[in-house]
Amino acid sequence: MVKKLLLAFGVMALLFPTLAFAADEATIPQLQSAIDAVWVMLAAILVIFMQAGFALLEAGSTRMKNAGHVAGKTILTFGLCAIAFWAVGFGFAFGDGNAFFGTTGFFVTGLEDQATAAFGSLSASDVPIGIKFLFQLAFAGVSLAIAWGGFAERAKLPVYFIFGILFTVVIYPIVAHWVWGGGWLSKLGMQDFAGSTVVHLQGATAALVATILLKPRIGKYNKDKTPNLIPGHNQVLSVLGVIILWIGWFGFNPGSTLSAMGDGFFGYIALTTNMAAAAGGVAALIISWMYFGKADIPSMLNGVLAALVAITAACAFVDTWAAIVIGAVAGIVTFFTAQWFERAGIDDPIYAFSVHGIAGIWGTLSTGLFATPELSAKVGVGGAGLFYGGGLHQLGIQALGVFGALAFVLVLSFIILGILKATVGLRVTEEEEIIGLDLSEHGSYGYPEQMKKAAQNGVSV
Amino acid sequence: MVKKLLLAFGVMALLFPTLAFAADEATIPQLQSAIDAVWVMLAAILVIFMQAGFALLEAGSTRMKNAGHVAGKTILTFGLCAIAFWAVGFGFAFGDGNAFFGTTGFFVTGLEDQATAAFGSLSASDVPIGIKFLFQLAFAGVSLAIAWGGFAERAKLPVYFIFGILFTVVIYPIVAHWVWGGGWLSKLGMQDFAGSTVVHLQGATAALVATILLKPRIGKYNKDKTPNLIPGHNQVLSVLGVIILWIGWFGFNPGSTLSAMGDGFFGYIALTTNMAAAAGGVAALIISWMYFGKADIPSMLNGVLAALVAITAACAFVDTWAAIVIGAVAGIVTFFTAQWFERAGIDDPIYAFSVHGIAGIWGTLSTGLFATPELSAKVGVGGAGLFYGGGLHQLGIQALGVFGALAFVLVLSFIILGILKATVGLRVTEEEEIIGLDLSEHGSYGYPEQMKKAAQNGVSV
Amino acid sequence: MVKKLLLAFGVMALLFPTLAFAADEATIPQLQSAIDAVWVMLAAILVIFMQAGFALLEAGSTRMKNAGHVAGKTILTFGLCAIAFWAVGFGFAFGDGNAFFGTTGFFVTGLEDQATAAFGSLSASDVPIGIKFLFQLAFAGVSLAIAWGGFAERAKLPVYFIFGILFTVVIYPIVAHWVWGGGWLSKLGMQDFAGSTVVHLQGATAALVATILLKPRIGKYNKDKTPNLIPGHNQVLSVLGVIILWIGWFGFNPGSTLSAMGDGFFGYIALTTNMAAAAGGVAALIISWMYFGKADIPSMLNGVLAALVAITAACAFVDTWAAIVIGAVAGIVTFFTAQWFERAGIDDPIYAFSVHGIAGIWGTLSTGLFATPELSAKVGVGGAGLFYGGGLHQLGIQALGVFGALAFVLVLSFIILGILKATVGLRVTEEEEIIGLDLSEHGSYGYPEQMKKAAQNGVSV
Repeated sequence: MVKKLLLAFGVMALLFPTLAFAADEATIPQLQSAIDAVWVMLAAILVIFMQAGFALLEAGSTRMKNAGHVAGKTILTFGLCAIAFWAVGFGFAFGDGNAFFGTTGFFVTGLEDQATAAFGSLSASDVPIGIKFLFQLAFAGVSLAIAWGGFAERAKLPVYFIFGILFTVVIYPIVAHWVWGGGWLSKLGMQDFAGSTVVHLQGATAALVATILLKPRIGKYNKDKTPNLIPGHNQVLSVLGVIILWIGWFGFNPGSTLSAMGDGFFGYIALTTNMAAAAGGVAALIISWMYFGKADIPSMLNGVLAALVAITAACAFVDTWAAIVIGAVAGIVTFFTAQWFERAGIDDPIYAFSVHGIAGIWGTLSTGLFATPELSAKVGVGGAGLFYGGGLHQLGIQALGVFGALAFVLVLSFIILGILKATVGLRVTEEEEIIGLDLSEHGSYGYPEQMKKAAQNGVSV
Repeated sequence: MVKKLLLAFGVMALLFPTLAFAADEATIPQLQSAIDAVWVMLAAILVIFMQAGFALLEAGSTRMKNAGHVAGKTILTFGLCAIAFWAVGFGFAFGDGNAFFGTTGFFVTGLEDQATAAFGSLSASDVPIGIKFLFQLAFAGVSLAIAWGGFAERAKLPVYFIFGILFTVVIYPIVAHWVWGGGWLSKLGMQDFAGSTVVHLQGATAALVATILLKPRIGKYNKDKTPNLIPGHNQVLSVLGVIILWIGWFGFNPGSTLSAMGDGFFGYIALTTNMAAAAGGVAALIISWMYFGKADIPSMLNGVLAALVAITAACAFVDTWAAIVIGAVAGIVTFFTAQWFERAGIDDPIYAFSVHGIAGIWGTLSTGLFATPELSAKVGVGGAGLFYGGGLHQLGIQALGVFGALAFVLVLSFIILGILKATVGLRVTEEEEIIGLDLSEHGSYGYPEQMKKAAQNGVSV
Repeated sequence: MVKKLLLAFGVMALLFPTLAFAADEATIPQLQSAIDAVWVMLAAILVIFMQAGFALLEAGSTRMKNAGHVAGKTILTFGLCAIAFWAVGFGFAFGDGNAFFGTTGFFVTGLEDQATAAFGSLSASDVPIGIKFLFQLAFAGVSLAIAWGGFAERAKLPVYFIFGILFTVVIYPIVAHWVWGGGWLSKLGMQDFAGSTVVHLQGATAALVATILLKPRIGKYNKDKTPNLIPGHNQVLSVLGVIILWIGWFGFNPGSTLSAMGDGFFGYIALTTNMAAAAGGVAALIISWMYFGKADIPSMLNGVLAALVAITAACAFVDTWAAIVIGAVAGIVTFFTAQWFERAGIDDPIYAFSVHGIAGIWGTLSTGLFATPELSAKVGVGGAGLFYGGGLHQLGIQALGVFGALAFVLVLSFIILGILKATVGLRVTEEEEIIGLDLSEHGSYGYPEQMKKAAQNGVSV
């Protein structure tokens, strides 16, 4: 009887795999890939939405006469970036290649088999290639949006076309390949989980070069070289922009797992990211209150962003308390460096280099201080930081990465923008700058009714 | 020994299914349904968020005196649409029925068993019915939001109530049934993946009828019939609106798979969608620069949207390079048709018919040109386009679909709006139009402080 | 032959489990946890994004001179809330403990094993603890954002620091523990699915206390105690805020399942939530039209929110038609109570107590009327409501919960704010209030160009 039962069952068991995974039913790897795909698609959408955050933050932080231009150029340059990154940048960054750049994957072709396409350093993840591309494009787009901060309120529109394409094609993807694409910094074990250096420091360095070559805005400095405040026209838009960026960072950092598996690791990264942002905003507001005697809202907004920038490298490697420390320090350091750059004659209208550059450097180095051995092992990149018994080894690698990226972007940006300055020119005329870029570059005000009224009333615009 | 082992294993294997799928543990179909549900819920949320995109785009593209009205009526009409689509529209569109409309599923009842409810043409997907309804409601809401473009700055509030409900109940769901609900165009194999025709052309056609019956806004045309520019009051809001719409389209197109399975197909659709949008925006900006001598921001925004509208039909059927071509062509064609309609005396304040109608037609036809045989087979609708050896067959079906939808909506909109015009009236009085709809329809300005200042300064509002 | 086949199969079957769940392959519980994690992460992001909704709604509903302050303080207080809830509030709310508060989980420590950490009343869900924390933090942040409505346009900045921290630490988590953390109301079977009482009534009660202690804004009431309208400065921002909140509620209510499994139950909850919102907005607009003779947009926006607040308790327990009734009633009741409070001398600038308090009470009670036995059993909390044969039992429990929460928050808020009033003071000086909180609390206008022009033109600000 028992034997008969077993015999009968034998046939059933033989059929079991086909029963369990019948025609239309998914296999476990397919389910896993689908979950990962949904998660990274959500993350990509959040990071692309950060373009709205940058458009609002930058428009809110500049003057009414330039608002349409500042917001509109965000869409233009993300469009250019999408096409250039698809054609060339993605292959340079993530294609198989050498220690310095990739050489496959241009036009995202040869990868039609979406789900299984092995592609350079991204092969480990089972996310379909289309989504991987969109996620990485979103990062390139953020880096470029940061760079524009240094061009604000005085650069010519053609510069956005030319530099936007060149940054996407020959600057960003090279450093991305070094750190994330299997390049030399990757092989050294540099810890830059979601891009404090790759995304933020790169964009910020280009912004710094731009602001140096463009020179300060008319009216920014007095004859004795003391700076004047040129306040942004709309703090509500800036606040909305920062909340959108904060939200976007839940895609930026946790999405960089490229997977929703791993026992909730992406959730842990979301937690460290959020706590750093909170600490950075609060710390910067308090510092501004102590320093200015007033709780300055733009300083607080910069503090939130600086903290998010800093935790971007470290989010997967550090404890929650360390995330709070990293965020708070970023908020404070950015506050003081922003003051310092302004006094030093560098007119960086939305503090791109302080917020994304200084905080990007701090974040990349902080990983070399706070990385725990357990989390480093979990991620599988680098080792423990100075405070966790790792000595100066990891910190040295982090410093090397910062130095390499900074030097490379500094040199290339000076070359590209220097050539542009000598040929087409970087800056609008004085007259154009005074009437504003909305009129000079686009032929119409972003706020036509309000600007017209101001003109009629004889108020200097 | 081996036999004993097998015997022992026999018992274990017998128990295996219960071991693997124990009491609280999900089955693979349940997991699959849950993944699909999360994905389509995300998509539905993104598409409902497009209401914010339309509210901002439309408010930003009109004048300050109408801004509160324009933005506020978006919420009102989405609310009306939700109730009318729940009660009637959803059943007409997706219920089992005949070639022209569905006859089941009113009030979304008889479908309490969320996960397994077979419902008309939506039965193939394992997404729970509540989410399917929300996703489809979001589409009806977008179509209606497009229609309102033609009513802007001069229609009476009661018209929004009456036409909003009738469009949701007797226009939109009928064409939706034809193409997606198992109706006659569906049976012919019309390729309209996410609704270039179903959603965009329908809304745009209603907008065209409205703009014809309402006549141009006061001050739009001079006595010699040349048009004046009536610029929108806030390009920053318009830019934000367009970015929200772009983001929303990541739900609109890829979500129309109604599944996250299929080896990353939804990711591929997100890729074609994004590349089209990028190409459309860049192409339109460049064309406007060549044509006007100035890089016009509203033209670029229209280019992005036109490209998104066009790729909506084609996104699942075409190669990435074709998506870029389709998007760029949409951006350029929309630019010129918008100029042409304006000169022809049709005052369509936010270019609804050019952006959603012309580009909707182009997108639907483009599928008949660029559809690849592989992707058509993957989707399981229609066949290869003209450029892929399909001859004129698919193109003919696409043209028939465009013609059918256009004719149906044109006729019904003329009847409904014609009756409204003859009875309650469509348009506010001249006086009301001059003071603005915020005051005339709602009793308070959307920007009370700014309008009050303008009035005090004697600036004509 | 058959025996040989079985023998051969025996070996295969023996290997089967390892084949099916090989090294890198996930188990079904891991897949399930990952799906749930993605869903609740999405929900947490949506609810955190509601901070943008509140910032815009509150800024849009107040005056230009306070706009930067109103928007900016949202970020500040969410930052404070994040740190305080992480350190203390989360443990009080959801830690294991007694009937009144939890006593474990402070600093979210002892829970490093993200995926399996059993944690108080949240143990039933397989969502990783980091995401559970963020989701619950988002709720605490919403409750606090609601409270600020009552402080608007006249409270000092230090009050936001002190009350923000104390609310997060000693008010919100206590009531959350009672209802959701295994406390006494939870044991009684109180039905408050996503927090009509826990989140909305609590925040609203604190707002009511604040508005009573702060006294009305300058100019709100005439000598004969009749109220003046102080209109908000930007309805477009308010509309955008409400759409963001509507979208956020798709995380708020359906995310409170803490799971994407359950045969699409979260989709059903999204459906009831959406239908209630639609009904509330339409009902409130129509009532305002009948009552004022004008279709008032702020009233409609309040109607949408009131409906969402009311359905928050009931969303998982009631039929779709009941959701529509609950939403419509909320919209209407809130309209009239807002009028009544205003006439009664309570100056609640953005109607926090009417929208979140009265509608929160109505929503909590409505569950006791409309809860179906099937859905109550599905959720596993409480029983059928009055209209479904449950008698007065459930309604009684709901009323007790409302009374308990209201009394507790009322008393604690009076104590905390009373002490603050007697010590640091709650309100800015008359002069500061007149020049606006942007200047008085932060040293710069949120709209510097517009305010400067207004001043130059001699328009009273």
